[in-house]
Amino acid sequence: MNRILTDFIHQYQPAVEKELQQAVALAHLPQDGLFYDMLAYHLGWTGEGAGQKAAGKRVRSLMLLLAAEAAGGTWQAALPAAAAVELIHNFSLIHDDIEDNSETRRNRLTLWKKWGIPQAINSGDAMFTLAHCASLRLAETIPLEQAFKAFSLIQTTCLKLTQGQYLDMKFEKEEQVTLDAYLQMVEGKTAALFSACMELGALCAQAIPEQLRAFSEFGKNLGLAFQMVDDWLGIWGDEQITGKPTASDILEGKKTLPILYGIMKAGAFAQRWRQGPIHPEEVKQAAELLAQEGAQQFTQTYADRYTQAALAALNAAQPQGAAGEALVELANWLLRRDT
Amino acid sequence: MNRILTDFIHQYQPAVEKELQQAVALAHLPQDGLFYDMLAYHLGWTGEGAGQKAAGKRVRSLMLLLAAEAAGGTWQAALPAAAAVELIHNFSLIHDDIEDNSETRRNRLTLWKKWGIPQAINSGDAMFTLAHCASLRLAETIPLEQAFKAFSLIQTTCLKLTQGQYLDMKFEKEEQVTLDAYLQMVEGKTAALFSACMELGALCAQAIPEQLRAFSEFGKNLGLAFQMVDDWLGIWGDEQITGKPTASDILEGKKTLPILYGIMKAGAFAQRWRQGPIHPEEVKQAAELLAQEGAQQFTQTYADRYTQAALAALNAAQPQGAAGEALVELANWLLRRDT
Repeated sequence: MNRILTDFIHQYQPAVEKELQQAVALAHLPQDGLFYDMLAYHLGWTGEGAGQKAAGKRVRSLMLLLAAEAAGGTWQAALPAAAAVELIHNFSLIHDDIEDNSETRRNRLTLWKKWGIPQAINSGDAMFTLAHCASLRLAETIPLEQAFKAFSLIQTTCLKLTQGQYLDMKFEKEEQVTLDAYLQMVEGKTAALFSACMELGALCAQAIPEQLRAFSEFGKNLGLAFQMVDDWLGIWGDEQITGKPTASDILEGKKTLPILYGIMKAGAFAQRWRQGPIHPEEVKQAAELLAQEGAQQFTQTYADRYTQAALAALNAAQPQGAAGEALVELANWLLRRDT
Repeated sequence: MNRILTDFIHQYQPAVEKELQQAVALAHLPQDGLFYDMLAYHLGWTGEGAGQKAAGKRVRSLMLLLAAEAAGGTWQAALPAAAAVELIHNFSLIHDDIEDNSETRRNRLTLWKKWGIPQAINSGDAMFTLAHCASLRLAETIPLEQAFKAFSLIQTTCLKLTQGQYLDMKFEKEEQVTLDAYLQMVEGKTAALFSACMELGALCAQAIPEQLRAFSEFGKNLGLAFQMVDDWLGIWGDEQITGKPTASDILEGKKTLPILYGIMKAGAFAQRWRQGPIHPEEVKQAAELLAQEGAQQFTQTYADRYTQAALAALNAAQPQGAAGEALVELANWLLRRDT
């Protein structure tokens, strides 16, 4: 990772964790109680394997704070929004893990696997609420009019998240999914929150509407490209780096971009896919087959297209100073993720 | 039901439904799509058995709008908050039904039973988000400072809801639950939203702090009394009126107030309770046993105590005009519920 970027991470990360802790403290949960434990475990603070790896990369708060600085504001004023987007992301992971029947995340048991589905649903609801509580502190750091715009943006973003998740689950039951439908799903599931992070950062810096739009576009395209890279890694990625078994998306039958390509290509991969679930012992071969049929190239081309669109939008946003440079580095890092 | 109250219901209800429909329309869901269908079904608008019975009583919006008028404001200005509390209540029902494994609600299949747990969790999340979206329209009807106070109150209320639900689920696994713990659970699960409805109404009327507190206290005590009456009906209520099988709480082993009394009394009921789940053919006898041991009287005494506290708080709130009278009627109606 680039030096400029790591410097920012070192500066922001302790403050983000503190803001998150303050947000959770708002709930007045007894710190030795199970309810607190469940939230703290998912955030990577407590339980076996607690620490930075369990906490995740906190990429979304990083994006938001960099955008705030790059748009000419201070990152400190944007901290409540940074905590809010991390809590929203983590709420959605808690519920997604139940919905997708995922037993592990970041090399640890998922919340539902540890404490059961009922408590996990409710803990997700609590984390979602804490996100909104966190965002309310914006009224202390920026003018109320701007804070209100931020609340509105957060809500419309959450609606898009649920719509993306709805489509993702719907696709599982459909034989064929069009590229347009896939893009719509990813726009909701991944790109909407990336876009909101950038726009919220710029909003906290009281950027003008054109700049807000450009930051939002940057985030949206970055999110689309990021998901496509994630789809690539979900089939051909190194287990050591991704934390997920290689080719797990094939095993789970997910309709990711390379797999959609394979189905549309109607070759040997598609023929096998139609016959029903691919077994663990076939997975390696299926991944190779997909690559031979051109799915790697196809996915890469798409990811590149959205990367270019993201960088063009970032340019239009006229990001300032070292934070502006760091945003370019962040895009490069997110879209390579080989480190 | 009292005439004053029905007049208000007839006046408010169409406007509340319209406000709810506007909130759902905000999500821009295709109206012929499954995602819309799931939300509309739960709200009682579509699907088999759609209509007023399926929609529920919309009691919370009624309380909120009456409080707004009784505190000297207009009910129209409070409509966004009224829609928000109904959506919050309905979101929590969608998730509670999954958590409690309830297959029917208001004589219809629950959302998860109809469309599966994953889609139901996500639909609940969407309805929760729609509640916040609905509340944002307060910025159009009351000054932004007041609207911000309303957003904050809504968030702290939602946190209390999740804490009440957490305790409720935790109690299922505990042999003994104290009366204090029970009250804490009900304060979160039922009384917090009742209290918020009253305070939000008064907030929309720009009431002074003392009045806000009095309305809040009224709602909280009314909620506690309401839950105790609900507990009473959950054992000795008429299936035709409650829509739930008689004594279903005994069958499900819920730790409601009469059952807690029975356990603490340590008589014949407690002896049977300790031996494991009570079977359907024993339920009638167990309900009678509980009554003989004094659980009806005990529950009624507790409900009366909180009813008196509620009415005293309402008196202190100095409610105005016909809406003020209707609030007294509402309390009487909610706490009798034999009609």
